[in-house]
Amino acid sequence: MDDTKGLAIALEEAKISYDEGGIPIGAALVGADGTVLGRGHNMRTQLGNPILHGETSALQNAGRLLATSYKGATMYTTLSPCDMCTGACLLYGISRVVIGENKTFLGGDGYLKQRGVEVVVVDDEACRGLMEKFIEEKPDVWNEDIGVEERVYSKEGTKQPSA
Amino acid sequence: MDDTKGLAIALEEAKISYDEGGIPIGAALVGADGTVLGRGHNMRTQLGNPILHGETSALQNAGRLLATSYKGATMYTTLSPCDMCTGACLLYGISRVVIGENKTFLGGDGYLKQRGVEVVVVDDEACRGLMEKFIEEKPDVWNEDIGVEERVYSKEGTKQPSA
Repeated sequence: MDDTKGLAIALEEAKISYDEGGIPIGAALVGADGTVLGRGHNMRTQLGNPILHGETSALQNAGRLLATSYKGATMYTTLSPCDMCTGACLLYGISRVVIGENKTFLGGDGYLKQRGVEVVVVDDEACRGLMEKFIEEKPDVWNEDIGVEERVYSKEGTKQPSA
Repeated sequence: MDDTKGLAIALEEAKISYDEGGIPIGAALVGADGTVLGRGHNMRTQLGNPILHGETSALQNAGRLLATSYKGATMYTTLSPCDMCTGACLLYGISRVVIGENKTFLGGDGYLKQRGVEVVVVDDEACRGLMEKFIEEKPDVWNEDIGVEERVYSKEGTKQPSA
């Protein structure tokens, strides 16, 4: 699948989440043959669930798969993956991670590369604009989602304090 | 909470999972004040869910928490955490991870330490025995859970191929 199309699905999921009053991060897991294996979005607000980020939701919705299904697969995500989602991609040996933007949050981009995963950062304006809007509107929910105590966001971008 | 007591809760969860026909890995998240914030077990088999490992289940069952709740908290887990669960502990800034055993599987013990988390490996015989029994009985389900294609387990212990 073309990366533009894959990221468009992830962004569509992010928008669904925003419209539900949730954190606008979406993801899509696409197999080596171009099949969408799973897609999903952050569900912290909607379900009160702290482990359902965009990427983990896509993995959950893909259901049980054999290791071979993840081989050559790409995880499309609107935002740089946090440590948990980075680890989820590593656990299942996902080959590529295409990231909408990593300006509002910088997660495991470097660690993924270090572990042999191909990482592409698109720097997509729509992904970034949606996150900036959400963080402006609900900074506390965002801080909760990335496990930080205070607002660390700035227009110049933010980093996970522990990174 | 005493580490022996915390690990006993995790092991209780692992046994519940085994009795349900699932992968016998359990975990408990205990706050700085000794309160059990959440407990849970692997649910791959029971729910067909690839992101519900012991630790992520405990986090899910703990629900939405502020960053302050994870501060000083300990994650008790019967088995060395995989990359996803390692990342989940890092995301929320969990201070300590107490691991029942890391002989049947070695996950992110080293990476957790590198990132400043206190790691205690108990080398508990009951935790190890339960895993060895399960891997012997259902090697394919186990391989699926750690994202590997072939059986890599041996009595001398195994490693995540990507680690």
